[in-house]
Amino acid sequence: MGRTLVYPKAAYNTAHRHNECATYDLREIHTIINTTKILHVSFNSTDPAAGPYPAILPMIGQMGSFTHPSADLNEPLECYIHGYVSMRMASLARINDGLPVTIAASKVDGLVLSLTPYSHNYIYRSAVLFGHAQVVTDAEEKLFAMQLITDSVMSGRWEGSRTPPNGAELGATAILRVKIAGGSGKISEAGADDKKEDLESEQVTSRVWSGIAPVWEVIGQPIPAKTNAVKILPEYMDKFVQGENEISEKHATELAKAR
Amino acid sequence: MGRTLVYPKAAYNTAHRHNECATYDLREIHTIINTTKILHVSFNSTDPAAGPYPAILPMIGQMGSFTHPSADLNEPLECYIHGYVSMRMASLARINDGLPVTIAASKVDGLVLSLTPYSHNYIYRSAVLFGHAQVVTDAEEKLFAMQLITDSVMSGRWEGSRTPPNGAELGATAILRVKIAGGSGKISEAGADDKKEDLESEQVTSRVWSGIAPVWEVIGQPIPAKTNAVKILPEYMDKFVQGENEISEKHATELAKAR
Repeated sequence: MGRTLVYPKAAYNTAHRHNECATYDLREIHTIINTTKILHVSFNSTDPAAGPYPAILPMIGQMGSFTHPSADLNEPLECYIHGYVSMRMASLARINDGLPVTIAASKVDGLVLSLTPYSHNYIYRSAVLFGHAQVVTDAEEKLFAMQLITDSVMSGRWEGSRTPPNGAELGATAILRVKIAGGSGKISEAGADDKKEDLESEQVTSRVWSGIAPVWEVIGQPIPAKTNAVKILPEYMDKFVQGENEISEKHATELAKAR
Repeated sequence: MGRTLVYPKAAYNTAHRHNECATYDLREIHTIINTTKILHVSFNSTDPAAGPYPAILPMIGQMGSFTHPSADLNEPLECYIHGYVSMRMASLARINDGLPVTIAASKVDGLVLSLTPYSHNYIYRSAVLFGHAQVVTDAEEKLFAMQLITDSVMSGRWEGSRTPPNGAELGATAILRVKIAGGSGKISEAGADDKKEDLESEQVTSRVWSGIAPVWEVIGQPIPAKTNAVKILPEYMDKFVQGENEISEKHATELAKAR
């Protein structure tokens, strides 16, 4: 449907190998970020005691645009992330253009079980975004990001829970807005590329099973809290759980069958 | 059973908040690393064109000890990682003590659906290791690591596929050994900690379903490649798939029920 936007190639986001799997397409990259439950956010501390190691924090995030809320996934968007923001991280995010961060998301779709360990692999999707993180201070923008993130945990949950958050809740929630400078992704669909010698060796093929085991994430039947008073699971929840499970299973199984 | 080793606390690995979830226990941290299919490995490039952003690569990894192969998961181990190692990364890993890296693994075990978005959360496990990566050059050590990693994809797969790798395969496989300096983990089992006001508001509790949806990863029935000649799925594969699925479902479901 019309134009496809891509992230510009730069030294930090250009794939050097497996170029056939690389993608710079905004929609593909943003989709991987949005459908991954935990993102890893990496940054450098300025504290010498932190040593030479980048920090990595697990966070929840979603792509969105506060100024253009109806923007499509193939448009330039910002990444709103939520999680434990340390004092150190927050103060770094207040300096100049914000804290330079790298955001990574990876999903396994299958185990590629080929004839030799050398050709074993995963079918996987991964995305990396590079940008500058700033603390969201505007109450309206924070509300926008909280709804975006809550509905990514379970679509319809914002409406389905006690909203809006009160002042204390808003105040205690830390959201970072990452202005994206670039990004890249890898969508590995490479199948079992066994070598001719192995495929032609009856000793090998008669003994070694080869193929693909699909892998996907399942959401189980929600289990009520002891304090829950709603006897029947709301329809939007049932629909979300069933819908997600169907999509995930179908995606992984079709990829595995395509080889 | 006896001693429990912990990683020493340092500026880079000490949790400042949610201390009740933090762990420094070697067995717990190593188990999260070993059971996570894709690890994120972060490091800093010395190339100015890379900008201020740490690099993050998706890689496969396992804890192990080449000099003490029978070492237990609660003992000091090295992390062997496999994946795309760029020329840049490999040359950095040859300097001095190796390339400083941070390795992260996170797993979602459940969606915590509480009365308010503010209390929404995941049940999750995450681990971070800090260390120095060096390229494995010794052929015996490389074989050791390849077997460790192949059997982590599917237990028994090394025996079940065409092994040992030939010289060309060994030569073309890049393995990094990360000498671990420290690490930490978070095992978040915090349930829906709704506030008194919400729990006592009939308007809220009569409308908002609260509880936990367990989440786990499923391995589907392996799908044979077009070239596969082994008619019946080998027993070790069937056992692995069933065993992993049972453990994963049980773990997530029990955590969700415990609230």
